[in-house]
Amino acid sequence: MTRTARALLAELLGTALLLAIVVGSGVMGVRLAQGNDAVALLANAAATAGGLYVLIVLLGPVSGAHFNPAVTLVMRLRGVALAAPWTGYVAAQVLGGLLGVTLAHAMFELPLWQPGVRARSGTAQMLSEGVATFGLLLAILLGARLRPAALPVLVAAWIFAAYWFTASTSFANPAVTLARSLTQSFAGIRPADVPAFVLAQLAGAVAAVPIARALLADARGDGAATPQ
Amino acid sequence: MTRTARALLAELLGTALLLAIVVGSGVMGVRLAQGNDAVALLANAAATAGGLYVLIVLLGPVSGAHFNPAVTLVMRLRGVALAAPWTGYVAAQVLGGLLGVTLAHAMFELPLWQPGVRARSGTAQMLSEGVATFGLLLAILLGARLRPAALPVLVAAWIFAAYWFTASTSFANPAVTLARSLTQSFAGIRPADVPAFVLAQLAGAVAAVPIARALLADARGDGAATPQ
Amino acid sequence: MTRTARALLAELLGTALLLAIVVGSGVMGVRLAQGNDAVALLANAAATAGGLYVLIVLLGPVSGAHFNPAVTLVMRLRGVALAAPWTGYVAAQVLGGLLGVTLAHAMFELPLWQPGVRARSGTAQMLSEGVATFGLLLAILLGARLRPAALPVLVAAWIFAAYWFTASTSFANPAVTLARSLTQSFAGIRPADVPAFVLAQLAGAVAAVPIARALLADARGDGAATPQ
Amino acid sequence: MTRTARALLAELLGTALLLAIVVGSGVMGVRLAQGNDAVALLANAAATAGGLYVLIVLLGPVSGAHFNPAVTLVMRLRGVALAAPWTGYVAAQVLGGLLGVTLAHAMFELPLWQPGVRARSGTAQMLSEGVATFGLLLAILLGARLRPAALPVLVAAWIFAAYWFTASTSFANPAVTLARSLTQSFAGIRPADVPAFVLAQLAGAVAAVPIARALLADARGDGAATPQ
Repeated sequence: MTRTARALLAELLGTALLLAIVVGSGVMGVRLAQGNDAVALLANAAATAGGLYVLIVLLGPVSGAHFNPAVTLVMRLRGVALAAPWTGYVAAQVLGGLLGVTLAHAMFELPLWQPGVRARSGTAQMLSEGVATFGLLLAILLGARLRPAALPVLVAAWIFAAYWFTASTSFANPAVTLARSLTQSFAGIRPADVPAFVLAQLAGAVAAVPIARALLADARGDGAATPQ
Repeated sequence: MTRTARALLAELLGTALLLAIVVGSGVMGVRLAQGNDAVALLANAAATAGGLYVLIVLLGPVSGAHFNPAVTLVMRLRGVALAAPWTGYVAAQVLGGLLGVTLAHAMFELPLWQPGVRARSGTAQMLSEGVATFGLLLAILLGARLRPAALPVLVAAWIFAAYWFTASTSFANPAVTLARSLTQSFAGIRPADVPAFVLAQLAGAVAAVPIARALLADARGDGAATPQ
Repeated sequence: MTRTARALLAELLGTALLLAIVVGSGVMGVRLAQGNDAVALLANAAATAGGLYVLIVLLGPVSGAHFNPAVTLVMRLRGVALAAPWTGYVAAQVLGGLLGVTLAHAMFELPLWQPGVRARSGTAQMLSEGVATFGLLLAILLGARLRPAALPVLVAAWIFAAYWFTASTSFANPAVTLARSLTQSFAGIRPADVPAFVLAQLAGAVAAVPIARALLADARGDGAATPQ
Repeated sequence: MTRTARALLAELLGTALLLAIVVGSGVMGVRLAQGNDAVALLANAAATAGGLYVLIVLLGPVSGAHFNPAVTLVMRLRGVALAAPWTGYVAAQVLGGLLGVTLAHAMFELPLWQPGVRARSGTAQMLSEGVATFGLLLAILLGARLRPAALPVLVAAWIFAAYWFTASTSFANPAVTLARSLTQSFAGIRPADVPAFVLAQLAGAVAAVPIARALLADARGDGAATPQ
């Protein structure tokens, strides 16, 4: 198997398992929580964070563990060499996301494809997605330079926090957004709301690039005494 | 004490404490949660993850900290040298599991052995167990190569996520499944449902082997620049 | 961009995101928790801890990641060289806090500025703030000497615990306190109660200095065999 | 300040803050949880784990961070050199525990001393305390040899799990038990039940010594290939 094929397999498998975790834990949470959606979201956020950590540790060395077209786009903008064409990354992520939602539905004996019905629209939702994705990219760009071994924890911790502090529960990922438009469960979104989410995510991701560059400039030259 | 005896003691003790944690925290969760099973499962999952982390750190250097016949089987298939015969590993795991369930019942003043009554059957449950065990073995096989010091956290985080995103709450372990057929508590399973669970777990475990091999091939030769 | 400007940007951005997380996750928790404030506080505390960890890892190398005038004050008292004047640090923190609260309100479609209405007064509250801030500074002062790489986790874990074990849910930060006087949500405080909180925080912070010094004296000279 | 004085200060301060966390987070949990004791225990366990981690990291290099007469006793039995007489350790722990409970009551405006009223007796409770303390000492004895840098996390994770999987919610510490006999809150215990708890804890602690020794024998000589 070539390096390219392995990278695409990693993106496909990682995004599929990520979506199975996001959707599956949402279904389980709602089934058990007796209507207390805060408990369901707590389970959903913690399971997502735990799973993301594992997937990034395992698949990072193979493909970079993007699982996210916004991340792939930023890497391409910054000229980072990828193990496969960026279009392949995005295709693997989108396909993986669809497979993951399907897998979650199969495990919980739900119809395999269900057009999402949960309305998520308006500027507050778009602002939420922009902030969540901005922070995600900031974590990836700064973390990769400052403490690369902590990247899996940084991403997981940020996503956990963003599930709670944004009004949209932080999709922060176009492939995840598209895949979640195929479920009517807790984690779903109406297909009509997908394009605005994706635009907001890409805007937030791109906005992180100059901020990260400004914060890092000459970071080494400072001889900073701080312990990180 | 010989190395073999120590390895068997480690598998026995580790699996016993693991089952005491799984069953005991399930009993405590249900007793306190006023019928909100999501809160009970959150406690159950977090306690299991915390305990698993500790047991793998402490007993990994002695026996490899399998506590799981599916893991032992895969290690044997891959020709990994074990500190004791694989049949001894499995016997210690099964015996440890039974002791652990008994200990949990004794701590909570319940009948020491109780044939499980909770039905868990059907293809969705088997799919769940297959996915959970596939991911567990992927974490172990890739983690051991890519970031061995993180193995205890990887296994704990995966099991936490799998408690939530699979419909079966992720037993992912034949010895655990057998032991949990002896409790009527939250964590139990009907004895009649055990064989299908075990088959699904072994199938998922074995399926992880070629995937892990494909993802790892020439992993070093890539000179990958990713930070893991 | 000069090192000074970058440090001020880091303090501004970090404090803004911290407040967005504290206030936003409080709003989300209360909206979903059906009146069970313990679930809301659990989400609030976990999101804050996760976010704090990320922000300290990312921005620590740039500015020290204070986000807190009490920390800046203690660093100045101890003669630590800062990347910008301490007044600049405090101004950036205060401004960042206000921006963060505004951002949280915007994401949740709430009035952007709301004078806080939640009464938090009395000696028990002040004692709580003193203890919380004392422990925070102890963690920073001892941690920076004994295990600097763990500082982000130490601060996050302390704040998580202090949300729960103090009667005030541990503001422990004058800039955070001021900013939280501009929200009527779960995390808010009456403006009239701010000065006493700030005084108690500063007292607790300053009290940690001699204790940390006493505990550290000759720490290296001991040749201590303990593993930290 | 001499090394002895610093060690005693560390044990006093650490045990005081530990008890403030245990009792304070229990009070807060019950106040907010609307009768759902599982949510209160989840908060109580998570706050205790977070706080324990911080205190062990910060004070471990000074005194070993025992905060627990059962730990001090085992260290003495094994001939480990302490920074102060073991009687001083125990006195500091007991006094610290009393101060910590008093502090928690003061922060929550409760009567400063309250003889505990919560009955915790019977062999199941004693078995629980024995198992919890056995595991705690196993974690400390094996962890100190196999992965000393992880000791604070090991202890915190074990205590979190033991809060849930034992019927007594795992006091596992004679100084903590005595101190908790002075509160009528969630975390309390009847004074009459303290002696049996302490006996069970000491028995569990001592039982861990030969097991740890057996598991570790020649651990280095094995040239074990496992990744820990």
